[in-house]
Amino acid sequence: MIVILKSDVKEGSPEYQDVIAFLQTRPGITTRVHKEVGALQTLIEIYLIGNTAGLDKMEIESLAGVERVVRVSEEYRIIGRHKDDSRPTGFDYNGVRFDQDNLNVFAGLCAVDTPEHVEAMMRTLKEFGQPCTRMGAYKPRTNPYAFQGHGAKCLPWVFELAGKYGIKVIAMEVTHDSHVDEIRQSLADTGQPTGVMLQIGTRNTQNFELLKIVGRQHEFPVLFKRGFGITLEESLNAAEYLASEGNRKIVFALRGMKTNLGDPHRNFVDFAHVPVIKRLTRMPVCIDPSHSVGSRERDPSGILDVMHVTAQGVIAGANMVLADFHPAPEKALVDGPQALLLRELPLFLEDVAIAREAYEKRRNLVKTFTSQHPPTQTAVGS
Amino acid sequence: MIVILKSDVKEGSPEYQDVIAFLQTRPGITTRVHKEVGALQTLIEIYLIGNTAGLDKMEIESLAGVERVVRVSEEYRIIGRHKDDSRPTGFDYNGVRFDQDNLNVFAGLCAVDTPEHVEAMMRTLKEFGQPCTRMGAYKPRTNPYAFQGHGAKCLPWVFELAGKYGIKVIAMEVTHDSHVDEIRQSLADTGQPTGVMLQIGTRNTQNFELLKIVGRQHEFPVLFKRGFGITLEESLNAAEYLASEGNRKIVFALRGMKTNLGDPHRNFVDFAHVPVIKRLTRMPVCIDPSHSVGSRERDPSGILDVMHVTAQGVIAGANMVLADFHPAPEKALVDGPQALLLRELPLFLEDVAIAREAYEKRRNLVKTFTSQHPPTQTAVGS
Amino acid sequence: MIVILKSDVKEGSPEYQDVIAFLQTRPGITTRVHKEVGALQTLIEIYLIGNTAGLDKMEIESLAGVERVVRVSEEYRIIGRHKDDSRPTGFDYNGVRFDQDNLNVFAGLCAVDTPEHVEAMMRTLKEFGQPCTRMGAYKPRTNPYAFQGHGAKCLPWVFELAGKYGIKVIAMEVTHDSHVDEIRQSLADTGQPTGVMLQIGTRNTQNFELLKIVGRQHEFPVLFKRGFGITLEESLNAAEYLASEGNRKIVFALRGMKTNLGDPHRNFVDFAHVPVIKRLTRMPVCIDPSHSVGSRERDPSGILDVMHVTAQGVIAGANMVLADFHPAPEKALVDGPQALLLRELPLFLEDVAIAREAYEKRRNLVKTFTSQHPPTQTAVGS
Amino acid sequence: MIVILKSDVKEGSPEYQDVIAFLQTRPGITTRVHKEVGALQTLIEIYLIGNTAGLDKMEIESLAGVERVVRVSEEYRIIGRHKDDSRPTGFDYNGVRFDQDNLNVFAGLCAVDTPEHVEAMMRTLKEFGQPCTRMGAYKPRTNPYAFQGHGAKCLPWVFELAGKYGIKVIAMEVTHDSHVDEIRQSLADTGQPTGVMLQIGTRNTQNFELLKIVGRQHEFPVLFKRGFGITLEESLNAAEYLASEGNRKIVFALRGMKTNLGDPHRNFVDFAHVPVIKRLTRMPVCIDPSHSVGSRERDPSGILDVMHVTAQGVIAGANMVLADFHPAPEKALVDGPQALLLRELPLFLEDVAIAREAYEKRRNLVKTFTSQHPPTQTAVGS
Repeated sequence: MIVILKSDVKEGSPEYQDVIAFLQTRPGITTRVHKEVGALQTLIEIYLIGNTAGLDKMEIESLAGVERVVRVSEEYRIIGRHKDDSRPTGFDYNGVRFDQDNLNVFAGLCAVDTPEHVEAMMRTLKEFGQPCTRMGAYKPRTNPYAFQGHGAKCLPWVFELAGKYGIKVIAMEVTHDSHVDEIRQSLADTGQPTGVMLQIGTRNTQNFELLKIVGRQHEFPVLFKRGFGITLEESLNAAEYLASEGNRKIVFALRGMKTNLGDPHRNFVDFAHVPVIKRLTRMPVCIDPSHSVGSRERDPSGILDVMHVTAQGVIAGANMVLADFHPAPEKALVDGPQALLLRELPLFLEDVAIAREAYEKRRNLVKTFTSQHPPTQTAVGS
Repeated sequence: MIVILKSDVKEGSPEYQDVIAFLQTRPGITTRVHKEVGALQTLIEIYLIGNTAGLDKMEIESLAGVERVVRVSEEYRIIGRHKDDSRPTGFDYNGVRFDQDNLNVFAGLCAVDTPEHVEAMMRTLKEFGQPCTRMGAYKPRTNPYAFQGHGAKCLPWVFELAGKYGIKVIAMEVTHDSHVDEIRQSLADTGQPTGVMLQIGTRNTQNFELLKIVGRQHEFPVLFKRGFGITLEESLNAAEYLASEGNRKIVFALRGMKTNLGDPHRNFVDFAHVPVIKRLTRMPVCIDPSHSVGSRERDPSGILDVMHVTAQGVIAGANMVLADFHPAPEKALVDGPQALLLRELPLFLEDVAIAREAYEKRRNLVKTFTSQHPPTQTAVGS
Repeated sequence: MIVILKSDVKEGSPEYQDVIAFLQTRPGITTRVHKEVGALQTLIEIYLIGNTAGLDKMEIESLAGVERVVRVSEEYRIIGRHKDDSRPTGFDYNGVRFDQDNLNVFAGLCAVDTPEHVEAMMRTLKEFGQPCTRMGAYKPRTNPYAFQGHGAKCLPWVFELAGKYGIKVIAMEVTHDSHVDEIRQSLADTGQPTGVMLQIGTRNTQNFELLKIVGRQHEFPVLFKRGFGITLEESLNAAEYLASEGNRKIVFALRGMKTNLGDPHRNFVDFAHVPVIKRLTRMPVCIDPSHSVGSRERDPSGILDVMHVTAQGVIAGANMVLADFHPAPEKALVDGPQALLLRELPLFLEDVAIAREAYEKRRNLVKTFTSQHPPTQTAVGS
Repeated sequence: MIVILKSDVKEGSPEYQDVIAFLQTRPGITTRVHKEVGALQTLIEIYLIGNTAGLDKMEIESLAGVERVVRVSEEYRIIGRHKDDSRPTGFDYNGVRFDQDNLNVFAGLCAVDTPEHVEAMMRTLKEFGQPCTRMGAYKPRTNPYAFQGHGAKCLPWVFELAGKYGIKVIAMEVTHDSHVDEIRQSLADTGQPTGVMLQIGTRNTQNFELLKIVGRQHEFPVLFKRGFGITLEESLNAAEYLASEGNRKIVFALRGMKTNLGDPHRNFVDFAHVPVIKRLTRMPVCIDPSHSVGSRERDPSGILDVMHVTAQGVIAGANMVLADFHPAPEKALVDGPQALLLRELPLFLEDVAIAREAYEKRRNLVKTFTSQHPPTQTAVGS
């Protein structure tokens, strides 16, 4: 159960105290206070944990400081979209908006290799007006003897180049808590030229200790990738670990599932789950077409599978796209075969725009239809 | 290896005889002649089976009657799209065209129940200009005590209603060879009021005896559904059974894969394979969004998941859509919960049109791009 | 609900008529009579289908002809092991007993190839006292251009050789109803020298039309293989199709599941389900180690994986083992690489005997323990 | 490539220097020295990384200090069992031997809850002569709001009780590097009353940073659990991370795979892979029947599925068994439903002994057979 206080109720005020006092007398209930700091105001939410079945929603709502009470389902207490839950989705970070209604493209290098390649990538992004990118410094590899990424030592020049080319947000995977410290330190050392969205990879989806540590910091938003061998429910429960520790700036990323039923694609593309995530939670949804497909195969008309699945995610309402590009894929140290070429960036962006435009038309179409035909009991399961 | 004869070479002609004679002298090679009967001409293809490695492609092409020789890969000899293989895709049936470039919608009832429901469905289809539908008379059910479809006895009135409302093609599942005879007989009895596309369901994808029998008849085209627990390669090999027996009028249908990684959808939606089928074979590709999703859940903007995955298939180039509708889903005997309502048909058709338009824009976009940037060796894997 | 009549009540007798009359007056209930013909007596079971919730079990049991009433669970009405259901398991066929307590080995050829190989196999079986074998005449193959088995034409000499070497039961796959007729005819033509257990392969587990036809004949017992891409529940429902048509002489076979999680084995070995099948149903359980493992790899001590998984199935109570042998695996037309050699037959049989002896010791051990510690409520889930 | 020095060659000796000098002059080769410290002697192995294809095995073996050169396959360089690789398997820890030939049972609590339960468990273990146990202090849970284990604070009394009852090795999961430090500290604080085998759980199988840290310490051996959604090859590559950092005291544990194909078991039991691990690597193999099965269901003869799958693992040569017991399963905080009761411990141990005895008989049987029938080229794939 979540008790949402009125927007003018401050922590420590008499109304606040009254609510807390009331809740503390309920047997078997503990409370956890969350402050959502927005641009204009701070919103206080009080989470009630324990046996809330016996609590009277209306009695709590009658308290002076209470705006509204939301009964949460068992799962995804914080990230979930509960019944009658009209709270907004999304967040702002370093001047970029992330929510369930808009779309950001993160084209970039799977793995940082040379300054020349990073600069070529960023220059092209600037040329086409892109403020976001992906750049991997820490690479978890299946084989212990494979290249593991340049790590902390590449951060200063990557961040400086980002600043030079106006990049606002870099999605960057971390696989240990020390990486968060290294990124924070390097950003400070270089004068905060850019922002970083911490990426939790699919191999760490259930690395709960890492999630707790990343969840405890509120500076960086988190790009959380679905686990590739677990159910969607289990991945969403894992995302809740981040939120339960206080960080709610989470984007949930679909990246394909491991099973040979998806062959010849590297993973089984799961972008049909885009609307499912939006229905179950309030997180923006990202798609990763490059790792899902894993090759540059194309259909007879010449369209790459990577671009087809991107269009599939976007036409169903995806809010973020993570795409591997490389100035010279044959020299890439990681995942070269799936990378798009720099000269394909404008093609890719225009293709995404076509799909996004179609999505927006579809959204308007259903809006018009729903206003004429409101869902009734006739509709099974609706 | 396929030897394609010149279009003016007739069976039994001297040029034909020469080619056959030449091939029969090659050791370890047997030949199978296939006549592709088109509207204007009949094309003769001779399939060479056995150890063709030692044959000289140019020597055969130098024979008088030979147009061209195609070396086929090991797999999908007939349905496959081989290297330098520019043969056309698709076929015509009862006035409707099916190929890899166009799109047909088959909205209809999962299972035939009452004449009233069938008539209501067909009347609505006619109202919105739809010449195709799906209607199940034979229903394979997991539980032996569940309703198994009305079988042969509903065929006469279903076909008559189809004729009354101008339906040209009904997709209808068959699960035993006797069903094909029953359908043929019933169409004859009722004066051929409509056409039937025989559907092979996912539980019979590897029922090779049924495939051989259906493949031996050339009257009805076949809608072949992917097997839900086998690899794509295995399903394509099974489709080749149909073609190897002589029937090449095959549409390949994606209908989702069985694995709990796709939850909460009923099956794991596999429409990212649309471009893959088009690349590997010359079959038109159908998608079945209703059985893939299996519910009427919708995203926060009100768009049903069934419509989202339809749009995903279509924007990637799907050529046929099979969709469950029902005048009264709560009374449907099979799969009611996933059915769309009759009043949702125009919404559905318009949504499909938006996605198709986007697909066509994308196809033009890549055509322009490719003409400016022809694929070179720089492109890895392209 | 199943109404089991007293053993001396004959069809058409007054007691029988009374029971039928009583049941026919119940609204919404239809009855299906099944006669279980045993060596000494015929047992009549009446299956009640429809809404049986309102029926009074004790009232029916008070009728003169009724021995006992069993309330069946929703699933597996006939093959299932219901609450308080002490009916015996298993059946006799051509002098061989099949039930949940004993063990039969079916070593033989995956596919019949030459008379010499078949005779060599059968001679070796006789030498080691084995009355059962496997011999495939109809082979469903993934690729349409692969060898499909010799079919009907090899049956006469296979059956004659079986008679010559005292083989009582041959497990033989059928993939179309015509195959059953061919087998019946060939046995008649050759003077019934042996018996046949009809095998339904994993590709036809949900070929319900074939199941109905095979279920309608009561002559041959059925070896029913689990479907490799569906849940256990779905496979058991499919086996119920056989029983619902009247044939209850069914052995359920585990043969591994298709998923790359089982690599490097050909299929994911599923023999941990042996006790599950015995708990849920009254069918004897067969294991197929050869197709599960698919190779002749061995552990460092020299024991083949095929033998390890056989021992695993047997120590958990398997009742039948299907094993591929071949006199010259390198010449086998199908699945040679997994075949055991004829000289390995005594080793295999002794290895099976060790595992069976261990199983029997375990069964005695738990019997002693249970008599000393009867399960109580303390035990969770027991 | 691994260069194994003669046992009397010490680090820094002239022979050692000669070998190093020789190897350092080879272009594109780097070396990593590993000292295997045994009870009687220290063995030096030099790993060559890079392009070793051009190296001459015999030339290196001709150097004075070199005992033998092993060419390793690409994968599992250190943990792998390579061609002509007769190095011993296993290790000793705190007086207990772990290798591919023997068997240790680890019965214990899934999660530490109260001192009373821990003491009851250990007292029973001592009563039946068991020197090993499992005790979870850190529990990774799917849901962030579930009990997460008592953590560091229970370690002192758990270790003291272990000492009191003669427990030599406790298997205990760690999910963060700080846990290793906490365990080391607590053992020191309590006077080293027992030993700990660090367990890496299935959710951290590809948490490479944790593996590297655990691999760098040589004090505690590691129980490494297979990842439940990845291939066996990927799990073995992950285990190689531990070894590549220097710790080779690794036991590899099978614990079932996540897929609904294994229903109604909690996971798909994968103990058919016991011989596979022994063939591919030199690690002892552990099985975890409790988490694989996840319930106390039993077959009609009264044997629990948990005991059936344990017997299946042991008869195929498993070297370690991890089993959940609990004095009062209904009060257990984690996984109560699958726990065995304390009074079932002797039954369980005797059941394991029966299966182990059968395994040993089988090993002798094949030894005798192989001495009479040495594998020849006749055997396909042998």
